Amino acid sequence: MGDLHWKTKITGVAPNSLLVRGYRLDELMGRASFGGLVCLLLKGELPSGNHGKMIEAVLVSCVDHGATPPSTLAARTAVSTGTPLNAAVAAGILAISRFHGGAIEDCMKILHETGALIKDGGASSVREAAEIIVKKYREQGKRLPGFGHRLHTDDPRTAKLFQLAESYQVGEMYISIAKALQEQLLARSGKKLPINVDGAIAAVLCELGFDPECANAFFMIARLPGLVAHILEERNCQQPMRRIDPVDHQYDGPEQRPLPEDL
Amino acid sequence: MGDLHWKTKITGVAPNSLLVRGYRLDELMGRASFGGLVCLLLKGELPSGNHGKMIEAVLVSCVDHGATPPSTLAARTAVSTGTPLNAAVAAGILAISRFHGGAIEDCMKILHETGALIKDGGASSVREAAEIIVKKYREQGKRLPGFGHRLHTDDPRTAKLFQLAESYQVGEMYISIAKALQEQLLARSGKKLPINVDGAIAAVLCELGFDPECANAFFMIARLPGLVAHILEERNCQQPMRRIDPVDHQYDGPEQRPLPEDL
Amino acid sequence: MGDLHWKTKITGVAPNSLLVRGYRLDELMGRASFGGLVCLLLKGELPSGNHGKMIEAVLVSCVDHGATPPSTLAARTAVSTGTPLNAAVAAGILAISRFHGGAIEDCMKILHETGALIKDGGASSVREAAEIIVKKYREQGKRLPGFGHRLHTDDPRTAKLFQLAESYQVGEMYISIAKALQEQLLARSGKKLPINVDGAIAAVLCELGFDPECANAFFMIARLPGLVAHILEERNCQQPMRRIDPVDHQYDGPEQRPLPEDL
Amino acid sequence: MGDLHWKTKITGVAPNSLLVRGYRLDELMGRASFGGLVCLLLKGELPSGNHGKMIEAVLVSCVDHGATPPSTLAARTAVSTGTPLNAAVAAGILAISRFHGGAIEDCMKILHETGALIKDGGASSVREAAEIIVKKYREQGKRLPGFGHRLHTDDPRTAKLFQLAESYQVGEMYISIAKALQEQLLARSGKKLPINVDGAIAAVLCELGFDPECANAFFMIARLPGLVAHILEERNCQQPMRRIDPVDHQYDGPEQRPLPEDL
Repeated sequence: MGDLHWKTKITGVAPNSLLVRGYRLDELMGRASFGGLVCLLLKGELPSGNHGKMIEAVLVSCVDHGATPPSTLAARTAVSTGTPLNAAVAAGILAISRFHGGAIEDCMKILHETGALIKDGGASSVREAAEIIVKKYREQGKRLPGFGHRLHTDDPRTAKLFQLAESYQVGEMYISIAKALQEQLLARSGKKLPINVDGAIAAVLCELGFDPECANAFFMIARLPGLVAHILEERNCQQPMRRIDPVDHQYDGPEQRPLPEDL
Repeated sequence: MGDLHWKTKITGVAPNSLLVRGYRLDELMGRASFGGLVCLLLKGELPSGNHGKMIEAVLVSCVDHGATPPSTLAARTAVSTGTPLNAAVAAGILAISRFHGGAIEDCMKILHETGALIKDGGASSVREAAEIIVKKYREQGKRLPGFGHRLHTDDPRTAKLFQLAESYQVGEMYISIAKALQEQLLARSGKKLPINVDGAIAAVLCELGFDPECANAFFMIARLPGLVAHILEERNCQQPMRRIDPVDHQYDGPEQRPLPEDL
Repeated sequence: MGDLHWKTKITGVAPNSLLVRGYRLDELMGRASFGGLVCLLLKGELPSGNHGKMIEAVLVSCVDHGATPPSTLAARTAVSTGTPLNAAVAAGILAISRFHGGAIEDCMKILHETGALIKDGGASSVREAAEIIVKKYREQGKRLPGFGHRLHTDDPRTAKLFQLAESYQVGEMYISIAKALQEQLLARSGKKLPINVDGAIAAVLCELGFDPECANAFFMIARLPGLVAHILEERNCQQPMRRIDPVDHQYDGPEQRPLPEDL
Repeated sequence: MGDLHWKTKITGVAPNSLLVRGYRLDELMGRASFGGLVCLLLKGELPSGNHGKMIEAVLVSCVDHGATPPSTLAARTAVSTGTPLNAAVAAGILAISRFHGGAIEDCMKILHETGALIKDGGASSVREAAEIIVKKYREQGKRLPGFGHRLHTDDPRTAKLFQLAESYQVGEMYISIAKALQEQLLARSGKKLPINVDGAIAAVLCELGFDPECANAFFMIARLPGLVAHILEERNCQQPMRRIDPVDHQYDGPEQRPLPEDL
């Protein structure tokens, strides 16, 4: 051992042996889902009960959002210059930041702040805590991240996440806080600012016990397949160096179809 | 529609509606796995039968490899300068390229080349086709990507992938080709060059009908949670700007433990 | 010295001493230009005569090209999500590749190929060599990189680079080859495909003895200040997450003005 | 003009015309140095007097620092996987952040803070202002960025930058503040914490009127040629995927030599 010797708690590597957080990687294969491994790597433990299914649903919920997000446009712009897959993926990842994906982390912090009010006795109910927080943010002239959406007024992903959270018994503390904040936003401002998909994911990740610093990681992991699909489509179906209009595009994939029965 | 109007077949976005390749994203949540979505996005269709489980197992198989790979070292080096998560993730992705992760794609091409020999009548059996290919590469002084490993002589992930492929009825054509190539490598060189995890993944992705251009994407998608875990550990547990020794490190996470029964 | 001991010929670092390719860095400061250092680092030697001035002129020639290039759009798209300067710069760099900046390298190879014909006796004159090369590329249906431009029919940077090359006595071999290729393109196709700035830089870098593998590096080094200016302007003067139209923009900086006399 | 019409003050692009901040780019070539263009792009005006020479000296001062910095190690790690030049450069850029290069910006802010004390009457002399600032930072247990160096106790680049600043008449306000801070650090702590190259650059950039948000950009622009030299050396002279020891390396380039007389 030299002066620079260091330690890691993530994965043990030895000839013909890989231990992720103590579990044999070959034993995890076929038993644990990818979402389960995300949990094992980021939190240190496998999800219990149906929580692995919840994590997979969270990942699925933000797997792609068409050609509108800046990460997708940055990745398409990069690959249209002939840059290879890894460089185009990286360009997309570099556009996932505070204003794109970042609302999950910011919303988790507010849910924790609201929850702490209740635990510390600063508020006697979820409703009162939400009232205090909404008042505080409105007085500071700040918007609450995770509420309201430019395009979706009633995001179907939010409803589905909350429904799955209930059936998977994920917990209800932070989800009820999110709903209380939504009510207070309506009561105080008169404007409907519904919980958006970022807010719903934030509530679920809080229930699952993830640290807010993991939030943007979830978004990056989830979005990577979408970025890759756009990169390959751009490379295979478009002229190099075209001007990529950020608005004037249209979906011409398969029409709406029901899920296969055997899924 | 302006001059720059363009079309995409990936995801249709409209108010309160998201269609991925024709399926409602909220319907996919809770029904399809993340691996299923990777397939839907990269191939255009959901996996059938147990193929979604196979894809998840492939993703799990390369979710992390400790602190040895260059992508991990590049990501840790970047974050140790105080760079944010997305920048450190991008630095890791930029180190996934021809020699790191790239063997999957190269091996898929060789498996296809060998398979084409059989289909086109250039060889009368898998064994003969493998003989021709191994001879050709040896004469050119080239190594066969996907065979042999610096560290693992009997990679447990390879055996598990093939076992799962059998139980999930993924197909056997390309797996038998990979095994035949392994036999011919031994027969011709006298050296044991076992199918490594890249080779096993290559065979499985060929069976599942993925294009070789998707190979490195699978590796990036799979490795992202591992990269994030290393980035967060580096940021939270190490001094900024430390010299990161690429060899002199050690696993001190949980000791080997059995999987939870209810997984 | 351990097993991993390795050597580098670039910069020697010792307490209170920095030697770049053998020269004291503090002695270089104030004596050598930045262009001189680019030469010292990439070629191993300082430029002689006025060649350092030529390199600075090359760098100045491609320092920015407004909001039209994909590298600029990728960098602006990234920073509009709140990503920090280094991440936005990296996103821009990732969009400098084969079709954007890459023509310099491809053109250098063709200039070398044409020059080799003359040296090896495959052609008796610059004109004949150019004729052979243009014929070959036309028969293969390939365009000659470095000739023709989407926007500029008579690029003022080309004329200036050639004029400076003459006054700085940089050499004329490859410049005359480039001009001969331009004539042959006109003669064979009837179309005016003038040497563009990429072609002119290619010729100058060939005269200066740079390897084609350095070409894209020159472009990246030169363009970095432009990328930074766009990133800072986007961050300071635009709304986050705006849709960045790649065409519908306009210059409203200072009107055309003469250079200061004392420059 | 559509809804997304936008404006930029940097470069006007029209057929056969490029105006950078109002100056014709072809006129700038051969007249302005690259450092002059960095100033024009980042500050909006060309440098006056010898200030362009000062900027070039700043760029030269941090053009490379051997194989020790994390940006260099990240870039070498990336390229050793076979990733292309632009991806390896980006990996290096992503490792230029708060703790690597960032001290210039942090130091500029402290120099401004100290300067503001004098202007606002909070201190009656440079010495008193420096005393107040050093006291404040020491009480907060914070180190002053730009002072002290792991390796260099008497950085030759610092002395040279200050000497050039004097001969180029760049100004002396912020340089005298930096020197006063250095004296107070010695007086208060008994430890010699000399102005390092980051601190010296910070003082010079303050004199030249640059905004602190430009500081890291200067470092990236300056370091790019060094990163490229290391990337090309790694690619051309080393085995792919080698373990890159961050400490156990040695310079074996040309021995120390005098500058050419005609430089």
